[in-house]
Amino acid sequence: MHVDELTTPALLVERETLRSNLDTMSAALPGARLRPHVKAHKCSELARRQRDDGHPGFTCATVRECEVLAAAGLGGDLLLANEVLDTARLGALVRDGSRVTLAVDSRETIAAAVRGGVREVVIDVAVGLPRCGAPPERAVDLARDAGRAGLEVRGVMGYEGHLMMVRPEAERARMVTEAVTPLARVAAELAREGLVASDLVTGGGTGTYRENTAVTEVQAGSYALMDTAYAEQGLPFGQALSVLGTVTSVSDAHAVVDAGLKAMSLDHGNPTVPGAQVWFCSDEHTTFAPEARVHVGDRIRVLPSHVDPTVALHEAMYLVDGDTVLERWPVDMRGW
Amino acid sequence: MHVDELTTPALLVERETLRSNLDTMSAALPGARLRPHVKAHKCSELARRQRDDGHPGFTCATVRECEVLAAAGLGGDLLLANEVLDTARLGALVRDGSRVTLAVDSRETIAAAVRGGVREVVIDVAVGLPRCGAPPERAVDLARDAGRAGLEVRGVMGYEGHLMMVRPEAERARMVTEAVTPLARVAAELAREGLVASDLVTGGGTGTYRENTAVTEVQAGSYALMDTAYAEQGLPFGQALSVLGTVTSVSDAHAVVDAGLKAMSLDHGNPTVPGAQVWFCSDEHTTFAPEARVHVGDRIRVLPSHVDPTVALHEAMYLVDGDTVLERWPVDMRGW
Repeated sequence: MHVDELTTPALLVERETLRSNLDTMSAALPGARLRPHVKAHKCSELARRQRDDGHPGFTCATVRECEVLAAAGLGGDLLLANEVLDTARLGALVRDGSRVTLAVDSRETIAAAVRGGVREVVIDVAVGLPRCGAPPERAVDLARDAGRAGLEVRGVMGYEGHLMMVRPEAERARMVTEAVTPLARVAAELAREGLVASDLVTGGGTGTYRENTAVTEVQAGSYALMDTAYAEQGLPFGQALSVLGTVTSVSDAHAVVDAGLKAMSLDHGNPTVPGAQVWFCSDEHTTFAPEARVHVGDRIRVLPSHVDPTVALHEAMYLVDGDTVLERWPVDMRGW
Repeated sequence: MHVDELTTPALLVERETLRSNLDTMSAALPGARLRPHVKAHKCSELARRQRDDGHPGFTCATVRECEVLAAAGLGGDLLLANEVLDTARLGALVRDGSRVTLAVDSRETIAAAVRGGVREVVIDVAVGLPRCGAPPERAVDLARDAGRAGLEVRGVMGYEGHLMMVRPEAERARMVTEAVTPLARVAAELAREGLVASDLVTGGGTGTYRENTAVTEVQAGSYALMDTAYAEQGLPFGQALSVLGTVTSVSDAHAVVDAGLKAMSLDHGNPTVPGAQVWFCSDEHTTFAPEARVHVGDRIRVLPSHVDPTVALHEAMYLVDGDTVLERWPVDMRGW
């Protein structure tokens, strides 16, 4: 099938770039050193390739992501790196043979884990991003609480999401080290007190996978497909993801492609149209000023600024080799 | 069912507010004066209520929206108010008995309509929004081209999307009148030349439904559910839509709810948490500083800033009366 036969807008993934991205990350973080985060692609076909590359476990952000991975036979070691109160569905996965580890940062989330039938947790420690995670000084108490409640504490987690895009790299490295030092200290303390079942320290992401040396495994996800925001960070990953659109209207100063903000998330800024200046996006359109003349019916590839929420807008992604469509991969982990 | 039994995040629609919004708009624009735009809710159950209120036709932005309405028995008069090159699926709907009218603004889009089996079109005229639409002076030629190609030209269309949020109202009214005056002139010219089958002039939206008196029908959609951006425009419609979330983490200065930018589009700005200051959204979280103490496990309703792309992120919306869930309505027009 030729890409021109696809209904637009359509999510394209360039096979060679994807392969190169997967290989580059697997070389840097082989095996269990990488726990790929599926929130960035929400696609079990892509997750299967990451597993086949030797990474045994996955990071998830939602219960649905865990369920779909388990149904795809990829539930051998799932970390739900998020606080969840509604744990009954996770317990069902555990009873069905999946291994599910849940992040907890409070007595309430520990109680929810027990209530739902989750058996393993990590203590989520705040490392500077104002979101979830307990203060480091609360970690020992929480680990004791979890143990008393019958949970196995596998280790600790900390996500330095606020540092992913810090530049220059040297400054990012300095800030990451500063942020994760308390996490390493907590991990050592819990080990000393005999409160953890392993030395697991989980965290990090595509933006900090080289700088964060405090973790035993990195939760990177965006590296596989990439976006224009990460492309500016000097990382060794190429832009595998684009949105194919059709030019539907051309005026003297501008043209319109049928991929708008329902096909590409704008939370990291406007998408990029190569060889053009993007004016604005509306629901189903992007208006842009092209440098060279474009024509009604032309197909163009638009580059999204943020991979995760863009993928979540689509039912499927198409693996392509240039203009040849190789496979259709359902985006099967959408929703909650 | 109580709303506390819903998996979060979940899209809620307050029944009484929705009913009031529908009634208010139907009183202002009865029957065929309103052609509800389904892009704002993508829900055939809601469209059915608009039809039951006496509005016989619908406005669509995508082929998928037309297909789903037709399959729901609501295809009696569908206007695809958008330029489309991939018209084969529209022709199939026409052959199956639906009435589909397509916007055209170029020879290429006219040729595509003919090629796909579409029989009726409107000439889309640019009225100031830099997007689709031919210059007014091109309209007569395009109508002649369409007629020669065997298409019936029902009338003209113009969408003043750039004026929906202009304030104060008097200034909005002045600018709308100025923008749509060429549209009315084109409509009269086409009628004089015998190039149109009816006096149809279609355009307008929730922000300009009172000011745009040049159109014979208004394409409003957002009024039914509303969002915080439109709520600031002094319109007689209430906020029927919210996103139910669960508080999953609480710190000294902030708290986190499990509805993030994959559950609410940020293109019109951050969502609103009543009684709190929103700090930022990430994929699955909104971090906010509450005025009064909140607790892990609390359920809160977050107000999205832009209804259309927010609804498109969800599989379903739940019609509620306060804390009672009345019905589950699939968001069945998602995708393309």
